[in-house]
Amino acid sequence: MSGNTFGKLFTVTTFGESHGLALGAIVDGCPPGMALTEADLQLDLDRRKPGTSRHTTQRREADQVKILSGVFEGKTTGTPIGLLIENTDQRSKDYGKIQEQFRPAHADYTYQQKYGIRDHRGGGRSSARETAMRVAAGAIAKKYLFETHGITVRGYLSQLGPIKVEKLNWDEVERNPFFCPDPDKVSEMEAYMDALRKEGDSIGARIEVVAEGVPPGLGEPVFDRLDAEIAHAMMSINAVKGVEVGAGFASVEQKGSEHRDEMSEAGFLSNHAGGILGGISSGQAITVSMALKPTSSLRLPGQSVDIKGEACEIITTGRHDPCVGIRATPIAEAMLALVLMDHLLRHRGQNVDVKQTTPIIPPNVV
Amino acid sequence: MSGNTFGKLFTVTTFGESHGLALGAIVDGCPPGMALTEADLQLDLDRRKPGTSRHTTQRREADQVKILSGVFEGKTTGTPIGLLIENTDQRSKDYGKIQEQFRPAHADYTYQQKYGIRDHRGGGRSSARETAMRVAAGAIAKKYLFETHGITVRGYLSQLGPIKVEKLNWDEVERNPFFCPDPDKVSEMEAYMDALRKEGDSIGARIEVVAEGVPPGLGEPVFDRLDAEIAHAMMSINAVKGVEVGAGFASVEQKGSEHRDEMSEAGFLSNHAGGILGGISSGQAITVSMALKPTSSLRLPGQSVDIKGEACEIITTGRHDPCVGIRATPIAEAMLALVLMDHLLRHRGQNVDVKQTTPIIPPNVV
Amino acid sequence: MSGNTFGKLFTVTTFGESHGLALGAIVDGCPPGMALTEADLQLDLDRRKPGTSRHTTQRREADQVKILSGVFEGKTTGTPIGLLIENTDQRSKDYGKIQEQFRPAHADYTYQQKYGIRDHRGGGRSSARETAMRVAAGAIAKKYLFETHGITVRGYLSQLGPIKVEKLNWDEVERNPFFCPDPDKVSEMEAYMDALRKEGDSIGARIEVVAEGVPPGLGEPVFDRLDAEIAHAMMSINAVKGVEVGAGFASVEQKGSEHRDEMSEAGFLSNHAGGILGGISSGQAITVSMALKPTSSLRLPGQSVDIKGEACEIITTGRHDPCVGIRATPIAEAMLALVLMDHLLRHRGQNVDVKQTTPIIPPNVV
Amino acid sequence: MSGNTFGKLFTVTTFGESHGLALGAIVDGCPPGMALTEADLQLDLDRRKPGTSRHTTQRREADQVKILSGVFEGKTTGTPIGLLIENTDQRSKDYGKIQEQFRPAHADYTYQQKYGIRDHRGGGRSSARETAMRVAAGAIAKKYLFETHGITVRGYLSQLGPIKVEKLNWDEVERNPFFCPDPDKVSEMEAYMDALRKEGDSIGARIEVVAEGVPPGLGEPVFDRLDAEIAHAMMSINAVKGVEVGAGFASVEQKGSEHRDEMSEAGFLSNHAGGILGGISSGQAITVSMALKPTSSLRLPGQSVDIKGEACEIITTGRHDPCVGIRATPIAEAMLALVLMDHLLRHRGQNVDVKQTTPIIPPNVV
Repeated sequence: MSGNTFGKLFTVTTFGESHGLALGAIVDGCPPGMALTEADLQLDLDRRKPGTSRHTTQRREADQVKILSGVFEGKTTGTPIGLLIENTDQRSKDYGKIQEQFRPAHADYTYQQKYGIRDHRGGGRSSARETAMRVAAGAIAKKYLFETHGITVRGYLSQLGPIKVEKLNWDEVERNPFFCPDPDKVSEMEAYMDALRKEGDSIGARIEVVAEGVPPGLGEPVFDRLDAEIAHAMMSINAVKGVEVGAGFASVEQKGSEHRDEMSEAGFLSNHAGGILGGISSGQAITVSMALKPTSSLRLPGQSVDIKGEACEIITTGRHDPCVGIRATPIAEAMLALVLMDHLLRHRGQNVDVKQTTPIIPPNVV
Repeated sequence: MSGNTFGKLFTVTTFGESHGLALGAIVDGCPPGMALTEADLQLDLDRRKPGTSRHTTQRREADQVKILSGVFEGKTTGTPIGLLIENTDQRSKDYGKIQEQFRPAHADYTYQQKYGIRDHRGGGRSSARETAMRVAAGAIAKKYLFETHGITVRGYLSQLGPIKVEKLNWDEVERNPFFCPDPDKVSEMEAYMDALRKEGDSIGARIEVVAEGVPPGLGEPVFDRLDAEIAHAMMSINAVKGVEVGAGFASVEQKGSEHRDEMSEAGFLSNHAGGILGGISSGQAITVSMALKPTSSLRLPGQSVDIKGEACEIITTGRHDPCVGIRATPIAEAMLALVLMDHLLRHRGQNVDVKQTTPIIPPNVV
Repeated sequence: MSGNTFGKLFTVTTFGESHGLALGAIVDGCPPGMALTEADLQLDLDRRKPGTSRHTTQRREADQVKILSGVFEGKTTGTPIGLLIENTDQRSKDYGKIQEQFRPAHADYTYQQKYGIRDHRGGGRSSARETAMRVAAGAIAKKYLFETHGITVRGYLSQLGPIKVEKLNWDEVERNPFFCPDPDKVSEMEAYMDALRKEGDSIGARIEVVAEGVPPGLGEPVFDRLDAEIAHAMMSINAVKGVEVGAGFASVEQKGSEHRDEMSEAGFLSNHAGGILGGISSGQAITVSMALKPTSSLRLPGQSVDIKGEACEIITTGRHDPCVGIRATPIAEAMLALVLMDHLLRHRGQNVDVKQTTPIIPPNVV
Repeated sequence: MSGNTFGKLFTVTTFGESHGLALGAIVDGCPPGMALTEADLQLDLDRRKPGTSRHTTQRREADQVKILSGVFEGKTTGTPIGLLIENTDQRSKDYGKIQEQFRPAHADYTYQQKYGIRDHRGGGRSSARETAMRVAAGAIAKKYLFETHGITVRGYLSQLGPIKVEKLNWDEVERNPFFCPDPDKVSEMEAYMDALRKEGDSIGARIEVVAEGVPPGLGEPVFDRLDAEIAHAMMSINAVKGVEVGAGFASVEQKGSEHRDEMSEAGFLSNHAGGILGGISSGQAITVSMALKPTSSLRLPGQSVDIKGEACEIITTGRHDPCVGIRATPIAEAMLALVLMDHLLRHRGQNVDVKQTTPIIPPNVV
């Protein structure tokens, strides 16, 4: 229990069920004096919110966030920031059948086993709706990281089922409903998703997130390594089944002479490490990749059991994302920002003026 | 800072550098009344220890662990267990050149950037030598999990560079120096490693760990999900660059109808989830896979810089594992055991008698 | 930073300023299946709320709490419970002068020093208004402790400035505006407070809290002793300057033969220990006493400095409690309940079925 | 469980029983680059160690500490510092009778209830012997606080049973076996202790600790207030039954006009607050007082019960401190230093350069 807090110095604690009255978060440890308004959070919330294209769930949520504390006359005060989003579109009757049955591959079963009771409406606490608060909290971290250290955190969809992107055009990412960075793949993705919707099936995806401008020195070995905390953060996102840093699983077949990022006076010569060595940021770009499984709520009938353990056939109606990966990019960005923010503060505790520490070599790949 | 403690209720805190006087750990939160001797820990320590074949570092360490507290008349008392291993084979002169230069892809550079000072001897704190204490602590968790709940945690090497295992024979795992479960691949691996040593290069690997008998209900969403904590644990192991649970990255190309593990009265029909749904154990086997990069200490010369940022050529002599993955199996097992132990205790806090909770369906794959 | 979470397994995180939009809390780790409604929390909130007699601040707050999550069909689900109280009576203009000046003995000065910015309205985050959320969260703990283990937590005012109570009549406590257990002292207290208000001065107080029915075994030595956590909890309440357990400071002059609580088959023969030995509950009543300083907001002029460090004379107008101790009883009860709840869950983690453990001797004082 | 770690950024985790093989600690989060040798720790260890006068236990322990990691070429490296003290004088046979019986007012009873097993030799983990590691860890904190910020932490015995000190002569404190600051009371204390020893009884004491030079701004409201953490730290010391900050319990009878520390351009005009306002340091001296109960191990026979709950008479032989307060001064100093160190690092995390922040008014009492 009490697993709803993330971070050590910059902490985020969340609450809220899919069809409850509201979602909320407390962001504790934000340094004082930063300008902050609700609009700063709304931008990322709007990127994540459902119903913005035909390819995501048709649930309509304004996801309008309110800042209830911790900001005075437009600036953070160092005290905890209370955030609230009221749920407005709760068509709970859609979920009537699910009360007694378990969707295969869904948390329905394990919540029932763990707690002996569950709010079955829309997945309750296990719904990805919870991630709205991560995005809101992450926006605070992103703003601080950028304004005080020039650190940027951004992501994109690199694969939608069988379709792999081939170009990385950052401007394109915000122009299509998939966060796809390759303009040549967008219409293929649209056609794929349209066909999928007709089938009543769902599909997996792969997301990449990249942080640039991260100073060397963040991460606290041996257990709170930066990459370990990133893995924790990413795997805590609904549907994520795998996480890689840098070369990731490709390292298995690499020789040391190939994998190692050689160094020159002008900078590193490659970045297989993904910006982290020995659990500490090297100054290079931090690159993270993750796999998201296909949604478990399908219109295609499946074998399952009910709450008594008796066999049943299950069909999920209601409004669901056929590919949860599509809306996951802002969530993954938020989680990476939260990890970096927490570790920036932890590193500073050591009396290291992060801004003054000069990197021995430039962070760029020559 | 203070990143050297793992766990919340069952905590492990470690210290020790590669060439310091000793390694140590404090295991806090072990339930009282369990029989425990040093021999219980030595078994796994011996599986991890260096120098047992020509394929690992030739450093000779007895890795003899002492229990200094927390055990009285052969039983745990509920008070913290102090563990100590003295370092005996410290050929520090081997490392003289490394003092001023950074090995590419090694933590040398980031430790220097973070702390402004480092114990360069054998990698200091960043050495995999530190993992001996994880193995010792993990052995306590393993014993408790098995004796009180019948939970087993075991692992194997599934890929050594280009060589993939094709059979899973658990008995074979302990019979060869690679933890390889496929008897047909052992000689191929031996030949590969012999050639690699001659080249002076190193290679990556893939490890699998499996926990069976885990009761449903472990894991604390939304941030302390069981899979998130496993990802944290595994990515905190030296050289790990990627972690998967269940189908992992294969999920990206799976459709929902393929990925979902359907359920019947007799049990689950498949296990793509890897035993975890919504961050909570389902009762199925927990399956975890991880990628280990090739060692960064090579005899092949490489471009690097020295402590002043000036270019230099570097050659690592000394004694190193050409494939850190070989000795990583017991470490990965230990980390999985530590996560399960901590979450078993956390779950119990909720007043759920784990032993009495009846799974709704059997955990087996039909 | 990030000091707004209390507890380890049963955690309470709060936000909110005196004159902000709302106060809130997230209670994480509440066991599932307990009946819970807003009315369960309102009872204690009403005991704490301002303006119920002429002896407390005349601010009028309904302190109406909303449960936003974690409860489904009237029962807790094991997921985090979001609580919210909107602020309704914010007469912020009362505080205009305080913006530039520091009230002596008030947190104005230290908040300004720490954060470089502060919400001066009504003391902002340093206001005792924040304790409303402690009371709401504490009510959940109290309910669980009582319903599952028969543990009761209650308190009273034992001294108001020079007036010491001489009788302990629990029924009387709720009948007067002071939580005074001695019916013979109530009119004396009223007269004292009336005179004090005329003077424009304030006064200190002493509060006692008692927990009965606590099973032996709660508390985690050596640092998380039960009494250490109680001291932490109580000293975290606004205005508290001292905490005692059992005989407290009287122990200084006691001999061991006098202080020690001898034991018989029928129970303990005395309770100087206050129910805690070696940091672990003994089964006896836990008795805690605390000192609250007089309010620092006075109408009597005082010497101070302004934000530039220049001398000024300060007079506090606005609405303040002339004795913060009067409303502190429910807060102290709440904090003791939170500590006991957290430690009950922590102790359970050790696989000790608290209900089944038989005390070696009865807890009563013979 | 797992209550043996103190602190959040600067953490101390300890292990060790009174009659086990050794005591140990891991100090994690010490900033790198500080000169540190075993001699730096030994000074305070020698002040605490038993057997230095006839007024303390006659157990003879060298309490020789070894630094096993975290220091390289005489300087801290930022990695965890492993500390070890071997137990040399374990006359375990002295404790034979205690195995089956509970000393009244001792942790014997509660350890048995909590764990169902205990190391009865010398009190096992509940022995004050454990505090040696606190003193060693505290010495590291003290050194850092003094060398980087000029903060001093020191203490004295202010009352031994009925004997109250009347003068505060810091030089005198180290000249007598009681840490008594009043040269005129030393012989009275000696006579008192001699008589007490003959009686076979024990006595309580009061200790004061003072930190000077603490910058304003330390402490993290609302729960991790500086005074709350100090109360936690002090109450975690064996035998402590009460803690006060500043005026403490005297505040109960003070009026606001008397208690409030008025401020002038030249500084504060008094220090009833004890250097902490709203849970944050004000820059004034931090003053803490605590009550220690008389030792529960007496030669005078007492009524008790045995492990089966049957009545027995108990007499404690063996070697015990007739006044645990005598050796408590270095322990209390250590705990205060640990709290300040942790909060200094936490405050820095907020990007506040503690050294550069100018106090608005001087900290001194005019």
